[in-house]
Amino acid sequence: MKNMAVVVMGCGGVGRQLLHHIVSCRSLHAQQKLHLRVVGVCDSKSLIVASDVFTMELDDTFLVEVCRVKSTGSSLLTLSNSGQHKVFSNPEAMRKIIDIATLLGRSTGLAFVDCSASSETIGVLKKVVDLSCCVVMANKKPLTSSMEDYEKLLAYPRRVRHESTVGAGLPVIVSLNRILLSGDPIHRIVGSLSGTLGYVMSEVEDGKPFSQVVKSAKSLGYTEPDPRDDLSGMDVARKALIIARLLGRRIDLDSIKVESLFPVEMGPNMMPVEAFLENGLPLLDKGVQERVEKASSNGNVLRYVCLIEESRYEVGIQELPKNSPLGRLRGSDNVLEISSRCYNQQPLVIQGAGAGNDTTAAGVLADILDIQDLFP
Amino acid sequence: MKNMAVVVMGCGGVGRQLLHHIVSCRSLHAQQKLHLRVVGVCDSKSLIVASDVFTMELDDTFLVEVCRVKSTGSSLLTLSNSGQHKVFSNPEAMRKIIDIATLLGRSTGLAFVDCSASSETIGVLKKVVDLSCCVVMANKKPLTSSMEDYEKLLAYPRRVRHESTVGAGLPVIVSLNRILLSGDPIHRIVGSLSGTLGYVMSEVEDGKPFSQVVKSAKSLGYTEPDPRDDLSGMDVARKALIIARLLGRRIDLDSIKVESLFPVEMGPNMMPVEAFLENGLPLLDKGVQERVEKASSNGNVLRYVCLIEESRYEVGIQELPKNSPLGRLRGSDNVLEISSRCYNQQPLVIQGAGAGNDTTAAGVLADILDIQDLFP
Repeated sequence: MKNMAVVVMGCGGVGRQLLHHIVSCRSLHAQQKLHLRVVGVCDSKSLIVASDVFTMELDDTFLVEVCRVKSTGSSLLTLSNSGQHKVFSNPEAMRKIIDIATLLGRSTGLAFVDCSASSETIGVLKKVVDLSCCVVMANKKPLTSSMEDYEKLLAYPRRVRHESTVGAGLPVIVSLNRILLSGDPIHRIVGSLSGTLGYVMSEVEDGKPFSQVVKSAKSLGYTEPDPRDDLSGMDVARKALIIARLLGRRIDLDSIKVESLFPVEMGPNMMPVEAFLENGLPLLDKGVQERVEKASSNGNVLRYVCLIEESRYEVGIQELPKNSPLGRLRGSDNVLEISSRCYNQQPLVIQGAGAGNDTTAAGVLADILDIQDLFP
Repeated sequence: MKNMAVVVMGCGGVGRQLLHHIVSCRSLHAQQKLHLRVVGVCDSKSLIVASDVFTMELDDTFLVEVCRVKSTGSSLLTLSNSGQHKVFSNPEAMRKIIDIATLLGRSTGLAFVDCSASSETIGVLKKVVDLSCCVVMANKKPLTSSMEDYEKLLAYPRRVRHESTVGAGLPVIVSLNRILLSGDPIHRIVGSLSGTLGYVMSEVEDGKPFSQVVKSAKSLGYTEPDPRDDLSGMDVARKALIIARLLGRRIDLDSIKVESLFPVEMGPNMMPVEAFLENGLPLLDKGVQERVEKASSNGNVLRYVCLIEESRYEVGIQELPKNSPLGRLRGSDNVLEISSRCYNQQPLVIQGAGAGNDTTAAGVLADILDIQDLFP
């Protein structure tokens, strides 16, 4: 039985779903002669760690309890010490994480799994990679920081996995890596990588007013609490940057041309979210409607896409043929088209649900299992 | 620099393309601190092996020469011994292969790469897996033999890769494995997994006679020399079996319901290929045309698909909505739709070129690189 020690960072929706997946896959993984030993769980303020990280673990009953506590919005600090585990709060928690990495990284192996959405994990992740630990990320922030951070994080690329940073569990990163390593040069990548913006663009195509579509998307839970976080395009830009860097481009977030779906004067610093929804958004309806109609008169549709070519990095609205993989896209599915030497006449197309805690956490879990050969 | 010893079995189109890819990716792989050391190459009758498999290799100039010789249809035996390499013919070649596996399997690591299309490699592959070697296959035969063979071959699943057995280089197997290992149950798989039959079905949809379409496909080089090898559906059935076994089904090739596109009395044992093309095929035109028209009157199209559900394994013609990923398929692209808990409202769709030596060999090369962590 191979024993993989894991520390889960972040107890939001994805982190909790990952813990549930780990628990419910116990017998499946035992068939593969594999045991995922969760030695630590942390949130932004605190860390719970097994009393002896060499031999003990946070057991399944306790992991389910951690999920319950976190789902009520409480801190991990509300869980008290026991013979099985200890609770640490910052800054002691941070020091303790490095201690565990030092103890296990070079001996039994240890994977840090970043399910947070925070920039604050970058420092820790760079350190643990240096200590021979593996890193699995659903968090886009560490990979979209400076090139200096990126290169430190990827100093040992085999130890790092991040499928769920683009298209949730869709096999995007693994496919790109396979193509790149087999020496098949990628000429062009175009995709719809935001379920939210995919939904918005296909609804306005049906003639619904932009403001109404955004409000429906918000009430359906498709958007962030402030829909401008989606409409700004910055989330898609981060995904574009992750792909571009994977292709070997040494660029930063500001190298990507990003089209925001609202003007600067309606930005988060200029008006509160309620004012944006009630007074700002409706002012944008006419402009969107005109663009939709113009595209339609050309037999085309509008899609919010990510486009990567030789030296072109763009995220924004494009007019596309109705009868193309992107043009046919409906609802919140993601799609990615990859053109290369092997996929030249027709692109390689990967399409499916690209959001949701279940599929995102499944992608993270697949990444963890994928690094098992690095564990002794 | 990690040094991966490799023996390439089979010097047909895929094997030669793989050797070319290995040679042309030298600097790319050096950047990844990786060197693929080809210690042996064999065809059905003979083996060429480096004089000292611990320290030497068949160098790039020699590999290119091997490809040249084999592309002219000559045997490896026409290459003579040198200080760098030795040539063995059967049965000595077989013993020598086991010797190399015994020497390198448990020490430096060794991958056997089966690019043949022969059942004769099964015995060797089972032995070398037992000797701690890795196996990468483009060859479907070893995986579609008896369950006993299959289980021996897959006794150490991490040491075995076979992406290019289904959909050439398309990321089918890797995606299925990721879904399965993350505990996401797969309910249904449906796909078009033959470029040849994909081409045939989309051409007859346009009203062309079946016999004419098959002859064009043959002259375009899309079919085997005897097109009945494609039209029998057995190649698709083997792919269906590989997928079903990956899903954990302990079934054999005869568990799969296969629809042949020609009747038994036109089989290879009943008439030669020329008679089939000239006299047999045209008799099938009317039947195919009627099915196409009936489907069309329902707004549907016919596709030759592979379907795997709970306890349903079928390969044959299905009537499908024109406006579905399979219905929209044109030409020789492959497509696979995977439905699971995570991909339930819409399937995960993977689509692209699913045939050709270039993409098949690229898939094999990606598999080789994927097992690098198993090498010391």
